[in-house]
Amino acid sequence: MKKGNKKVNAAIIIIGNEILSGRTQDINVSFLAKWLNDLGVRVGEVRIIEDNEESIINTIKEVKNSFEYVFTTGGIGPTHDDITSKSIAKAFNLSCGYHKEAYDILEKYYKPGEFNEGRKKMAKIPDQAELIYNPSSGAPGFIVKNVFCLPGVPSILKSMVEGLKNKIIGGKKILSKTISVNTVESKIAKSLEDVQNKFKDIEIGSYPFFRLGKIGVSIVIRSTEKNQIDDCSKQIVSFIHKKKIQIMDSD
Amino acid sequence: MKKGNKKVNAAIIIIGNEILSGRTQDINVSFLAKWLNDLGVRVGEVRIIEDNEESIINTIKEVKNSFEYVFTTGGIGPTHDDITSKSIAKAFNLSCGYHKEAYDILEKYYKPGEFNEGRKKMAKIPDQAELIYNPSSGAPGFIVKNVFCLPGVPSILKSMVEGLKNKIIGGKKILSKTISVNTVESKIAKSLEDVQNKFKDIEIGSYPFFRLGKIGVSIVIRSTEKNQIDDCSKQIVSFIHKKKIQIMDSD
Repeated sequence: MKKGNKKVNAAIIIIGNEILSGRTQDINVSFLAKWLNDLGVRVGEVRIIEDNEESIINTIKEVKNSFEYVFTTGGIGPTHDDITSKSIAKAFNLSCGYHKEAYDILEKYYKPGEFNEGRKKMAKIPDQAELIYNPSSGAPGFIVKNVFCLPGVPSILKSMVEGLKNKIIGGKKILSKTISVNTVESKIAKSLEDVQNKFKDIEIGSYPFFRLGKIGVSIVIRSTEKNQIDDCSKQIVSFIHKKKIQIMDSD
Repeated sequence: MKKGNKKVNAAIIIIGNEILSGRTQDINVSFLAKWLNDLGVRVGEVRIIEDNEESIINTIKEVKNSFEYVFTTGGIGPTHDDITSKSIAKAFNLSCGYHKEAYDILEKYYKPGEFNEGRKKMAKIPDQAELIYNPSSGAPGFIVKNVFCLPGVPSILKSMVEGLKNKIIGGKKILSKTISVNTVESKIAKSLEDVQNKFKDIEIGSYPFFRLGKIGVSIVIRSTEKNQIDDCSKQIVSFIHKKKIQIMDSD
């Protein structure tokens, strides 16, 4: 698979009232973002939306055209609040009956007599969808065009993405370097901006932190070009030394 | 402040490449969602967007008209990547010079000679904005119309929201009850759907979990009406008992 120079982007759509209510802390965004980053895909936007057909349809219709890849998490289980499959089908004007391959997988997965109504619901997947196999718990996810639908349970999601690597054509991998320094942001703001202005294609982020009673700032340099990160890093380290600021760590 | 029956909703906009890259795990969404919930405000959508002027302006223009309240986090510090203030100003067609009150606060906060250029930048706030005071670290957040701009550092954000309670007119508080049962979702899916169909105004969520080696499902009932939650809960407990499923805990 050719790795182009093109910037490839993705949106992540977290479907779930339990995240919006604050009851559950999402951890799928950071996992998927890092996983995509390693494949050369940059997450450009995340939306967390309600388990609500209209919200899902409208969001998918909007993001599927703005991003190369869209990943959804949540709402593909057996209960009444799992409405991702039928909503995605509607967003693409597809019907959503029993998907033969999914039905066969689930029928084999459960013991005889245990393939009940709830479990059969998980075989209702948009027509023409390609399945995403589930090594943890049987029920597959699915792909419709550029939209990849995954479950919300983090451990199951993690077990399923491994099989997706060859479905995604990323750009160059985004590399990063972090320099953590023992200072406050305002003491480096001007110098950091000067460096940013010299390296227009590089993204320099500045993030204050409080760690083990110490204040500090993590300066994060991101780019697809290692030599540019190195050049930029040198200039940052140079002004840090001039200001007699301690470097706490650097990767 | 009269608590109406009206459903009051909010959007949260997390501004920050560090969240989108997966480098930093967001924890502000769940904190703000619970805090808003206690004030009778339901979070209807969350977006995580790039530190990019166009993204911020477009997102704010869209959500400020769709939600009663909008909360942003991140991008109000002293460095070049902190562009929330000027972007919010543009979204509302306001200018963004030194805000007298913010300037005075910051000038007093820092020792003589330490109110440098980076720190002065934090006094650049949209014209006519009302300040959100910061008991932790001086630099204020601000309110423009229905948009509340807060910092990204969770401990500072938490210290600032306490002063905002009287600025928010919520609806009735959304109450919830959780019943955790030792089963799999598919065994209760049909009965749960029947209960949901009887209680159209109540939101019933079903969330599988794996905890200390045990599988289970948390059934979460949400409504503003306590008596409806109680009625709904009784019917759920009743079918759980009939199915001889163990209740692990219930609040």
